[in-house]
This record gives sequence, C-alpha cells and structure tokens, in this order.
Amino acid sequence: MHSIITITTDFGPGNKGIGVMHAVIQRICPDVHVINLAQDVPGFDVRAGARLLEAIAFVPAAAHICVVDPGVGTKRRALILITKRGDALVGPDNGVLIPATNSLGGIVKAFEVTNPTWMLQPVSAIFHGRDVFAPTAAHIAAGKNPADAGSAIDSKTLAPAPFPEAKYRHQAIEAEVIDMNSYGNVFLNIRAEEMHKLATIGNTIKLSAGANQILLPYLRTFGEVPVNSPVIIDDDFGRIEVAVNQGNFAEALGIDRGQEIILRVTLTGAD
Amino acid sequence: MHSIITITTDFGPGNKGIGVMHAVIQRICPDVHVINLAQDVPGFDVRAGARLLEAIAFVPAAAHICVVDPGVGTKRRALILITKRGDALVGPDNGVLIPATNSLGGIVKAFEVTNPTWMLQPVSAIFHGRDVFAPTAAHIAAGKNPADAGSAIDSKTLAPAPFPEAKYRHQAIEAEVIDMNSYGNVFLNIRAEEMHKLATIGNTIKLSAGANQILLPYLRTFGEVPVNSPVIIDDDFGRIEVAVNQGNFAEALGIDRGQEIILRVTLTGAD
Amino acid sequence: MHSIITITTDFGPGNKGIGVMHAVIQRICPDVHVINLAQDVPGFDVRAGARLLEAIAFVPAAAHICVVDPGVGTKRRALILITKRGDALVGPDNGVLIPATNSLGGIVKAFEVTNPTWMLQPVSAIFHGRDVFAPTAAHIAAGKNPADAGSAIDSKTLAPAPFPEAKYRHQAIEAEVIDMNSYGNVFLNIRAEEMHKLATIGNTIKLSAGANQILLPYLRTFGEVPVNSPVIIDDDFGRIEVAVNQGNFAEALGIDRGQEIILRVTLTGAD
Repeated sequence: MHSIITITTDFGPGNKGIGVMHAVIQRICPDVHVINLAQDVPGFDVRAGARLLEAIAFVPAAAHICVVDPGVGTKRRALILITKRGDALVGPDNGVLIPATNSLGGIVKAFEVTNPTWMLQPVSAIFHGRDVFAPTAAHIAAGKNPADAGSAIDSKTLAPAPFPEAKYRHQAIEAEVIDMNSYGNVFLNIRAEEMHKLATIGNTIKLSAGANQILLPYLRTFGEVPVNSPVIIDDDFGRIEVAVNQGNFAEALGIDRGQEIILRVTLTGAD
Repeated sequence: MHSIITITTDFGPGNKGIGVMHAVIQRICPDVHVINLAQDVPGFDVRAGARLLEAIAFVPAAAHICVVDPGVGTKRRALILITKRGDALVGPDNGVLIPATNSLGGIVKAFEVTNPTWMLQPVSAIFHGRDVFAPTAAHIAAGKNPADAGSAIDSKTLAPAPFPEAKYRHQAIEAEVIDMNSYGNVFLNIRAEEMHKLATIGNTIKLSAGANQILLPYLRTFGEVPVNSPVIIDDDFGRIEVAVNQGNFAEALGIDRGQEIILRVTLTGAD
Repeated sequence: MHSIITITTDFGPGNKGIGVMHAVIQRICPDVHVINLAQDVPGFDVRAGARLLEAIAFVPAAAHICVVDPGVGTKRRALILITKRGDALVGPDNGVLIPATNSLGGIVKAFEVTNPTWMLQPVSAIFHGRDVFAPTAAHIAAGKNPADAGSAIDSKTLAPAPFPEAKYRHQAIEAEVIDMNSYGNVFLNIRAEEMHKLATIGNTIKLSAGANQILLPYLRTFGEVPVNSPVIIDDDFGRIEVAVNQGNFAEALGIDRGQEIILRVTLTGAD
C-alpha cells in the first residue's frame, strides 16, 4: 500500500503516454498521488535512466515505475523489485531499476509480472508502460500482494546495472560519465560518500578525460567559482558532478552524451 | 459529471498556460483529477493534435480539453461534443476534436459555448484555453448540463476532421502521414483493424513514399528487427506506424512533419 | 493555509527535480494541489522567470515557489513574500519574485527563511528548491505561520525586479524585450492598461528595434492579420506582445532572447 506512485520515462516531457498511464492508474487506485519524476531520459538510454531513477531516494517509500525499455515486446521480463525501505520498483529487466535500489537498502524480493489480470488487456506489443507497468504499480499501491502478480524470481538472475561503480584507488578514482544534463554538466559514477574519503572541500582536483587534463577546485556549489570556470561538486542526489558555472563543461571538453571515458582524480593539496 | 479532465495543447511541455488552466479548473471543480495528456502537439498543427487526441480512447469517459487553435479570437465556434461513451470533448471548431470521437461511439450531441457565465471574464482574445475551454470542462465535470453552456448545434455543420481515413484497396492501402514523433517514427491514417484484413504479422510490405520504395516486415514490435532496420507495426493507439528500430525513419526517407505523401502497401507474401 | 502550491522553475519540463519537490510537499502537506506552472524558464534567466511568474495573477491566492536561482549556495537570502491578496511567494532574493507581487496588491510582509526545521536536512548546496523552498511552501500551505520560518525583513532591502517598467511618454513608449517564446513572439515590459491610455485597437504602431523600423497594427489577436504578417496585441497576462501570425517575429527582426532593446511606439492614426 503506497500513497505515491512515481513515473520515470524516456517518452519526453508532454508526451501523451504519460497522461494515459496516469489515467490507467487512477482507474485502479483513485486516491494515489501520481508524481511525474524524470520524463526527459534520453530515448532508449538505460544508463541515464538508471541514474535519474536514483532520485527516488528523495521520495518516501512508494511504487515507482520506470519505462526505459528498448526491449519492449521481446522476451525481457517485467519486474517488481521490493526494497528494504518498502518501495516497489516496477519496470523492465534491463538493469535500469538496479542502481536506485542500492540506496534503499537493496532488493529484498523480486517478482516477474505474468498474471494477465494485473495487465490492461489486450496488452500492446510496444507500450508496456500503459498495459503492464502502470496497472501493476497501481495494484501494489492499492494494497495487493506483489506475489500475486506472477512468480518470485532469484535476484541473482536480474540483468545487471547499466554502469559499474567507480573504482576507488589510493588518491585517485577511475570513473565514468553516466549522464549529462542540458547545461552540459557531467555526472560521474562516484558516490559522494566515497569522494569524501579522498578529498576535502577546497582541494584542487586533476581531471583527465581522454587526452585532456584540467585542474579544478572541489567546492560546494557552482557559484563559488567565476562564471565560465569549471568546478567539481557533490551533486544533489549523492553522486559527483563536474560543471562550468553558467557554462557547458561537456562541450568544453568534447564529451558526448553516453560516451564512456575514464576520469582520474588526483589530489594536489589544498588550494 | 466526470472524475477526470484531460488537457491536450500545442503550448509545449512546461508552459505556464497549462498550469493556469489547472488552477481555473481547480477553482470550479476542486475534486477532479486533471491529467496532462499531450502537451507536445507541434504549434498550430491541427492534424497532429487530432491524432494525439485519439489517445483518449485509453482514458475512461471524461471531460477532454484540446487547445490547438490557430483561429483563436476569430469567429470559429467553441464546442462541446458529447460522445456515445459519455465523454465531453471541449475545444475549437476546427476539426481537431473529430477523429477522437470516432472510437468513442461517435457524437451524440453538439453545443456551441456562448454563455458568458461559463467563461472566465474578461475573456482574452488569445487564450480561450484558460478563459473558455477550461471553465467549460470544469462546469461539465462538476455536473452542470452542457445544454446550459450555449446552444445545441447540428453536428453536420462542424468543421471536418483534418485528415481523411486511408483508402483500403484490393491488397493495397492509400494512406497519409498524419504525424511523426521525435524519434522519426511515422504515423499513418490506417486503422489497425483494417490493416489486419489485408496483412498478417510476418508479411513483407512494399512501401512507396514519393520516389522511394522499400520492403519492410510487418511485425509486432521494433525489437523484432535488427537495430537500424525498418519495420511496420500496429501503433499503441489503434493505428499503423512505420519506424526504424532505434533509428529515424522519417529522416531516412526524407519525410517532413506534416508533409502529405501517398503510401501504397503491397503484400508480397509471407517472408 | 492554501489549497494550491504552484511551482515555476528553470529546470526544464520533465526534470526529476520538479517531481522530487512534489514528493517533499506531499509529505508535509498531503492534501494540497501541486500545480506545475512554468517549467520552461530559460536556464538562469531571472528576467524571463519574473515575467512568467506574473501568471500567478490568474491562480487563486496560493503558495507559489519560484526556483530561478543562479546564486544557489551563495549568501543570497531565501525569501517568503506575503502579498496583499494573501499569496506567499517563496524563492531566492534575486528579484525574480518582485514583478509578480505588483498585480497582487504588493508585498505586505517579507521574511528570510533561516529556521532549519523548515528545511529538508541535510540542505544541499545546490538544490534549495527541494531542501528549502518546497518544504517552506508546504509548511505555509499547511497553515504554519511564515514568521516561524525565520526573521522578518524590510522589503526595501530586497533585490530589485530584474526589469524596469516601460517609460510612458507623450504618444510613445520606451520599452524593453523581457521575454520571448518558442514561436518568436516578443513580450515587452509594457502594461496593457498603460498601452490603452495611448493607443486604441485598430491604430497603426511604428516599432523601432535597433536599426529596424516597421509599421504594424494594434489588434486583438494574431488571426486578424494575414499569415506571416506582424501584429501588436495585449498578451494574455496583462502585458504587450509583438508577433507574426503563424511566423517568428524575433527571427524576422534579429532579436535575441534576453537582448535588451529600446522600442519606441508611435501612433500614426487609425488605419
């Protein structure tokens, strides 16, 4: 039983599909609050979707739908993942749900959705958001037992997370760009709590992206450097972010969305 | 009396006008669920708006507002169309509401909105979404009689649908592109149920668009062809869609949004 | 106590941050209606944000959050502004809230938010929308006394509005472009009620933008001029707008978003 259902998709903001999912949910569970979380996941980008879904750590325990689903209509499973915190994550078995479960205490139960009475019939081959995931989340929010949705599955058989966690070395971190936003800010697979073990606010960081190397300060916020200067900060959802104050970091260093690069962080002492 | 009001506009997602319409509705009918359906109708594109509004077939009977209204402030009428299913469609008399009524049992009553007490006064010359359509839908959702909004009109006098239905020939269909999405998927004025009379999943289809001719399979979903291969499928709202798996069909064939082209579909036997 | 909270941001439509703010509000004040007003404020554009926020004049008295906040994490104050109409505007002290208060009877009380129990802890250095403004607005909507949020401040110390009002001369108005929309419509800092003192619907207006001079009619709506012709009208939120019917005025005259230009309006008599 949940009072909130969140929706994360790669449909693009303003897409009718999100509204139709609202309507499907409303019919099954009229009193739930439906909250649009990210609708701006780049199309088919499981990696970016997984990072954006991590935002549910800032939502109370709820039913969370994520539809970033290039394999819709193929044999990939439809999942319900129950977290230790009490969330139910509903979406495809392509790894997109996995990183978000880590900060919610991990997965305590996993189910494959196969019960046709939990679906909107006839089930379309291409829009499981409407026909499978939305009704499933609504049934769970309404208090039904997730075990009735299908069969329990071993969480070891789940498709893995679409990105690894960074490798934390002595005074260095080997990381990857896991997402970028429209301002060209670059998000890394570094957890802020791990960064804090190696670096202190005020330190200077050496960042290597391909052939480029730059020095930049590790601070608390964009506004602490001049306009157009780079800065590395804790992002607002528990990871590490590199940005240019009121500018475009990704463009400045030629980083493409989705491109996998290795970033080595070297501490050169407090500035 | 309806528990849901949907809003479809060409304002663009995140536009303040949609929020202001919510507020107007809330004041008149505080308990209704307002659902944003499509907000990404291309500006002034009555044809695309009409197709997107067909999605209301997947919403329970409700009051539906559609604001794609290049003639706002001119003499075009403001309409309420009551469908056999029990919906009330509210919007301008430019054809945009018509295709959606077809899958709801057709129009059983039509009214012109002229009653000033149903409007937000003073009525702006350019934002009837806020001043006419939103309050009208809210009054209907609150249980008022649509006949009190103005005068009954003959549905034969309504502006026609902005696109024809496809012509179904022996083994061929003469169709039109009625919409495209941001992935370059192309939507045709073919009803899936008519397609099923001519073609079976697994058939190969010859598609002609201007000077271009290609062969492509008729399948259930994108993922059944390799990445970058074209495919023709039933879309998720009852029509036929042509796409390239994780690619851009419209770009590949040089099809512009809104361009009217003739597509001839020829069955060449099962593949 | 308010039944509605509106949210205006420069996050971009579909951004997860907006959904997370909904969730924070819901937890504190479960029964309030959260309405997304503008989410399409250009990034960091305090001027455009201030104009878009003026739309709250069309929402009943409510708690209104505005997050256009390039100074987040620096020493700029977090504000609550109480209007004569009974609204509570919540946002940064950078001028973005000021123009909207003018049509709501002006500011009757102002507070700086400093009470840590009104915030989501720990407060992020870069997302005060979630950690300061959303919970503050929710507490006010739930009926808490704004005075408990921190300390009363003198409204004379507030950062000024990001744009001046136009200068109204004899038969001429010296104005500025305060915003543009995606259609290239240009919004001026002229109040419609002041325009009405100088010009009557049907007059011809001479408009000077840099080296360009054009004549255009002052009418009620776009549709009263031919497609691709320019027109000057009252916009739908109390200011003056210049547009090309179904075309792009800003492009035609080479006006960039945010560019400050002087427009002189000369009446040459009725057409």
